[in-house]
Amino acid sequence: MNGMDMEQLGQQSFVYGCELKPGKDVVFNPEEDAFEHQLSLRTVSVDPTTKDELQVVEVEGCDANGQTVKTVLASVRPSCLPCVSLAGFEIAPPVVFRLKSGSGPVHLTGQHLVLTDGEQSFEDDDDDDEE
Amino acid sequence: MNGMDMEQLGQQSFVYGCELKPGKDVVFNPEEDAFEHQLSLRTVSVDPTTKDELQVVEVEGCDANGQTVKTVLASVRPSCLPCVSLAGFEIAPPVVFRLKSGSGPVHLTGQHLVLTDGEQSFEDDDDDDEE
Amino acid sequence: MNGMDMEQLGQQSFVYGCELKPGKDVVFNPEEDAFEHQLSLRTVSVDPTTKDELQVVEVEGCDANGQTVKTVLASVRPSCLPCVSLAGFEIAPPVVFRLKSGSGPVHLTGQHLVLTDGEQSFEDDDDDDEE
Amino acid sequence: MNGMDMEQLGQQSFVYGCELKPGKDVVFNPEEDAFEHQLSLRTVSVDPTTKDELQVVEVEGCDANGQTVKTVLASVRPSCLPCVSLAGFEIAPPVVFRLKSGSGPVHLTGQHLVLTDGEQSFEDDDDDDEE
Amino acid sequence: MNGMDMEQLGQQSFVYGCELKPGKDVVFNPEEDAFEHQLSLRTVSVDPTTKDELQVVEVEGCDANGQTVKTVLASVRPSCLPCVSLAGFEIAPPVVFRLKSGSGPVHLTGQHLVLTDGEQSFEDDDDDDEE
Repeated sequence: MNGMDMEQLGQQSFVYGCELKPGKDVVFNPEEDAFEHQLSLRTVSVDPTTKDELQVVEVEGCDANGQTVKTVLASVRPSCLPCVSLAGFEIAPPVVFRLKSGSGPVHLTGQHLVLTDGEQSFEDDDDDDEE
Repeated sequence: MNGMDMEQLGQQSFVYGCELKPGKDVVFNPEEDAFEHQLSLRTVSVDPTTKDELQVVEVEGCDANGQTVKTVLASVRPSCLPCVSLAGFEIAPPVVFRLKSGSGPVHLTGQHLVLTDGEQSFEDDDDDDEE
Repeated sequence: MNGMDMEQLGQQSFVYGCELKPGKDVVFNPEEDAFEHQLSLRTVSVDPTTKDELQVVEVEGCDANGQTVKTVLASVRPSCLPCVSLAGFEIAPPVVFRLKSGSGPVHLTGQHLVLTDGEQSFEDDDDDDEE
Repeated sequence: MNGMDMEQLGQQSFVYGCELKPGKDVVFNPEEDAFEHQLSLRTVSVDPTTKDELQVVEVEGCDANGQTVKTVLASVRPSCLPCVSLAGFEIAPPVVFRLKSGSGPVHLTGQHLVLTDGEQSFEDDDDDDEE
Repeated sequence: MNGMDMEQLGQQSFVYGCELKPGKDVVFNPEEDAFEHQLSLRTVSVDPTTKDELQVVEVEGCDANGQTVKTVLASVRPSCLPCVSLAGFEIAPPVVFRLKSGSGPVHLTGQHLVLTDGEQSFEDDDDDDEE
């Protein structure tokens, strides 16, 4: 009932959501299993309890040199831009989200994608079974 | 006349729309049939009857651990951001949409995608017919 | 000079645009021919003659049960959100666009995609020629 | 050093940008060569010299009937929406951009995609070389 | 732990981020190695220290004629549009980002994609190993 059969499609999409508040790191780092995990970030939104000040969401991940990089994912503000659509910002774990400025709360929502190692590896598995 | 021939393309896109009001859950959970169903969410919009306050749309779905997760899909406000484009947020049933804050109405629109199980399974079916 | 050779690419993209005014339905329903037609909606915009009130664009199409569905495509307002990017909302004919609220004009722009039936069917045609 | 090797990838992406001012048509119509050309439009932006009035960008292209069509690409306004993201509006030459309203300047930016005729034709060429 | 195995997927995605201030060019031009590098730009955001004036981000890259082109990537302004989503503007090195107007800081964030030369070349490598 979870939507898609991984054996056939090679990718499953789940809902991901977290609430960001000051001083609280939200870590996305699924336990190692047979699958690849990825986030496809979709929206950053305020709610009615969010103070009217700039809310800055920071993402901390890994750059191409293997170094930790911190950068601004998005900035929202209740009175002018209460929501930003990220349109599918794809990011691989380990990654950390935090509220760099503002007293929040801010809500981060996206798709948690679970994919197999090589997308073509299913047939390899099938071959093994047939032997 | 519905646009695309499923047997050939493997995917059909229909219009999906719902109106969100306080205290009303909108469930997307098509009856089980031979096809996979998916939403590709596109826009969240207010209309002229929507009160000028923050309208927060919540989505309730399934996370990667099989647990129910509730998170903010988008926030709109008539006087500053009457519409948010979600750019194709893909979500599999069962899923629930509701207005978490605000008195609405808020309109959620997207594509209802109907796809076959494995996208390559058509030929399998054809093979059966040929036997 | 129209950009792409359909025989080779299987898809051609043209400019689609219409102006929405109160009481005027804009129908997108190309005559039946050998090709599939689709809209990839891109932007909803106001112009300087648009009154400063909420302009609500409605789309009427076909849902997955074969029923007609009307829903809000986007809402724009000259003084706060004069333009919304739809990022490629794909919709198959027959479809109707209308201004549900506001006195307009509102401009809807996108790509009119013309594609062949099955994307692999060109070779079939070639086979016929070779016989 | 231009990023991608066309022989191998079949598509190269370059930066496209133009400045729109009243009474000045900007034509995108590359000279005919062995490649297909396409724009993937990304952003429409104002700068600090842009007067605070609605700036309406018009696009003139070819519709599916081979007729010239003019429609609004996007509307921006320095005090409320200084930038609109078009998220990859794909358009084939010949195409004309102009400022339909407002005194500008407005900046249009995107990717100029150069692709080969049929994306699979490289191997054909390779085959010829091997003979 | 960096998410994806390049040998199998052919593409790896890392976090890219930079801070733009007046008079400071940010160059993206990775050292030549066996891989192709590309940016998929995602967001331009202000932070609470950004002065409330129009902040204009310029990109300098290579056009299809091999000439250097400078154009406006996006414009943001703390009081009305503190963040713009670029939805994956793909750009190949060498490229330079700078703040053309405004006193900043402005934050540019995206994905740094590392891909192999021809995406199909893995099998070639495998063939060599088998010999």
